[in-house]
Amino acid sequence: MTYSFTISIARKAGLSDPEGTTTKKALNDLGFDGVTHVSYGRTISVDVTAATPQEARSNIEAMCEKLLANPVMETYTIEALA
Amino acid sequence: MTYSFTISIARKAGLSDPEGTTTKKALNDLGFDGVTHVSYGRTISVDVTAATPQEARSNIEAMCEKLLANPVMETYTIEALA
Repeated sequence: MTYSFTISIARKAGLSDPEGTTTKKALNDLGFDGVTHVSYGRTISVDVTAATPQEARSNIEAMCEKLLANPVMETYTIEALA
Repeated sequence: MTYSFTISIARKAGLSDPEGTTTKKALNDLGFDGVTHVSYGRTISVDVTAATPQEARSNIEAMCEKLLANPVMETYTIEALA
């Protein structure tokens, strides 16, 4: 059976986010004076075939560690879709 | 008061996602044979100061149209955080 997951990846707290800083400045320059903070993350949607939901999730965790996320600089959360 | 929003941006259906295609192939090559589909999106977290939640949300919608998303190629959803 095929299971769908969404992986949300964000920078660890304290690391600089130049894309967010630049976007905040651009929004302020456009007249959105109320913007106080902008930060970026990414999401990866993965469909995986597995025998059980548990096997699917452990596969996704292994993918995150091996390829999808950078555990040194990023944190990730895994969400199973219905 | 400051309101926090998360904007999720994804490519419109039918547009090619070369990053997703390449990641799917890489996962298959790493031995994750069950992976059938991978697609990428991005999230932007924005903190905005406004008088009311309604004003904050309408500001966020204007930001999406003017700068954050590309309405030709992308769809976005806005989620207010507690």
